[in-house]
Amino acid sequence: MRKVLTGLVFLTLWAAMAQAGSSADEDAVRAVLQRQQQDWNRGDVKAFLEGYEHSDDTTFVGTSINRGYSSVLARYRERYPNRESMGSVTFSNLEVRMLGQDYASVLGRWRLERGAGAGGPVGGYFTLLLRKTSQGWKIFLDHTSVE
Amino acid sequence: MRKVLTGLVFLTLWAAMAQAGSSADEDAVRAVLQRQQQDWNRGDVKAFLEGYEHSDDTTFVGTSINRGYSSVLARYRERYPNRESMGSVTFSNLEVRMLGQDYASVLGRWRLERGAGAGGPVGGYFTLLLRKTSQGWKIFLDHTSVE
Repeated sequence: MRKVLTGLVFLTLWAAMAQAGSSADEDAVRAVLQRQQQDWNRGDVKAFLEGYEHSDDTTFVGTSINRGYSSVLARYRERYPNRESMGSVTFSNLEVRMLGQDYASVLGRWRLERGAGAGGPVGGYFTLLLRKTSQGWKIFLDHTSVE
Repeated sequence: MRKVLTGLVFLTLWAAMAQAGSSADEDAVRAVLQRQQQDWNRGDVKAFLEGYEHSDDTTFVGTSINRGYSSVLARYRERYPNRESMGSVTFSNLEVRMLGQDYASVLGRWRLERGAGAGGPVGGYFTLLLRKTSQGWKIFLDHTSVE
């Protein structure tokens, strides 16, 4: 009987720790997006891009596909050449899914507020895939669409 | 020395088996999409929907979000009410990524050929997330965008 109880205590502890680990990972994933939002709204594209993995496989899917970190960076620099075009971004309705221990997905809404002269407001949905790297959680696939 | 050699043989066998398992999973994921394409092109929306997980969490992201298997099915039935509107679909440029052992993503292109009276041709990209279930690999998130 005591063995069963001890086993149950350890099982409960183990489950609680696994849950805490998963929840910590989810918080870390949310923090990546929160930081990206702040970096964007400071007008710092380079810092914003640090949310992505520095890899040739990093992929941005919009109306076309950009492959590789430097290509994704070039796309952002081209589409948002100045502070006015960047406007102010808000990410909302974030749904983080842990896919095992090393991967996560985020479905969310994005909304860019900016003046009519800079392209006007725009928004839509994104699906991100992130991987747990030695540098923390990093986006390796971003599928962004316009509403 | 013999122990080291035996260890190396087992390590090689284990790596080969893990590789084969991953490759078999990738083939199974591709088979889901190939079957969906065939079912669609037979005009069988119900069979096509079998590629998705029967779950309240199954999510379709287009210009809006449909949540739950029955909501996703209703969306397809509404947008593609007859054989003409379904046209003929082709999936191409499929990139399957294994995300650990139980999850996978697929990035791909879709193209619908159909007459002008039924809406004309249309296409774009999709990012799918699949889970290995007791019924095989099933899509639980589909982000589809138009070019």
